[in-house]
Amino acid sequence: MRVAVLGTGGVGQTLAAKIAELGHEVMVGTRDVQAALDRTDAGWGAMVFSDWHAAHPDVKVGTFAEAAAHAEVVINATAGAASLDALQAAGAKNVEGKILIDVSNPLDFSSGMPPTLSVCNTDSLGEQIQRAFPGAKVVKTLNTVNMNLMVEPSLVAGGDHHIFVSGNDAAAKAEVTRILKEWFGWKNVIDLGDMSSARGPEMLLPLWLQLSMASQGDLVTIKIVR
Amino acid sequence: MRVAVLGTGGVGQTLAAKIAELGHEVMVGTRDVQAALDRTDAGWGAMVFSDWHAAHPDVKVGTFAEAAAHAEVVINATAGAASLDALQAAGAKNVEGKILIDVSNPLDFSSGMPPTLSVCNTDSLGEQIQRAFPGAKVVKTLNTVNMNLMVEPSLVAGGDHHIFVSGNDAAAKAEVTRILKEWFGWKNVIDLGDMSSARGPEMLLPLWLQLSMASQGDLVTIKIVR
Repeated sequence: MRVAVLGTGGVGQTLAAKIAELGHEVMVGTRDVQAALDRTDAGWGAMVFSDWHAAHPDVKVGTFAEAAAHAEVVINATAGAASLDALQAAGAKNVEGKILIDVSNPLDFSSGMPPTLSVCNTDSLGEQIQRAFPGAKVVKTLNTVNMNLMVEPSLVAGGDHHIFVSGNDAAAKAEVTRILKEWFGWKNVIDLGDMSSARGPEMLLPLWLQLSMASQGDLVTIKIVR
Repeated sequence: MRVAVLGTGGVGQTLAAKIAELGHEVMVGTRDVQAALDRTDAGWGAMVFSDWHAAHPDVKVGTFAEAAAHAEVVINATAGAASLDALQAAGAKNVEGKILIDVSNPLDFSSGMPPTLSVCNTDSLGEQIQRAFPGAKVVKTLNTVNMNLMVEPSLVAGGDHHIFVSGNDAAAKAEVTRILKEWFGWKNVIDLGDMSSARGPEMLLPLWLQLSMASQGDLVTIKIVR
């Protein structure tokens, strides 16, 4: 499958590396390709991008628009604060009719740690993206776990925990559920409902951050019991 | 121990019945005792209050102020939208120096289902209560589970799941942790930090409500895995 991963940070690098390893044709999208390759600093959990790219020569790098145009499935792995801008740069016509997997969180670090959410309660970033790109089949998922756990859920409790999908298109959610299971090994995927249900997983972030700080690690996640 | 349970709804009834059954001296607090006993309707998950009281004659009933004055430990089991008013009626002097266990959620049903939160993200109901009653030792807990699970965690997965405590007073959190374990049988209590950490468990409510609706039941809760 041809996959676009928008974002060159740790989440984008982790997803792109894993999906390429599975044999898919991956293009990472960024605002300015040369600027990304010239960068000498690395974001949290990330490698310096040129080093990462040298280690993954099978992954193409393009602009947001080139990556989205290339892809059958587009993954938004940009920082939540930059996601709407990044997707505008990708272009509505390049995500039209496509599954757009949104793994971002609307974290606002402008007042320091812990971050607050820039949108919550009566709206969510997932809903904002779906409204801005009505032709895309947006599915919110993976935003409740650390990037390493996204692609290797067995790192914690043998994978005996849960991930969520939210979205308005049932077929798109079914396809993303297949991707989560077959590509990454997720065992337990819960369909929460339409895109407004993305408020729940996004609003889990404050608790997740507390737990992550309390446990001195970020592989913490939740198992649903009933 | 002398315990006040503020609130005559399902949560108050469940907590008061369990704590009285353990042999503690429980007084339920309400705004207007006669009005509560005259009521012929029952709230969600509750019995008609006079029927409940007839079934639990060992539990005293008083005003919010009488109940709080009677108690060594005060439990706020009123609806979140009414909690600050109820505690004002209880009176700052009657909660001064006491542990005040807050199990409420700031749910706003004014726009229908699902409810939104009346406060979140940059503040929480737990923090509002602590600011309004600086002399009380407020501990937020139990707000993430159904009332039946509050007092009998073994109803789900043999009790193999988690509950949280948040608060500014370490000794009060330790005493509430003891109460959760010894009175109700909680095995896994996580101290999230100071009262600002109550934002996390309160913001879990939208996800909890989605899961509760999706599973056709409200005994759903979360286990933390790492």
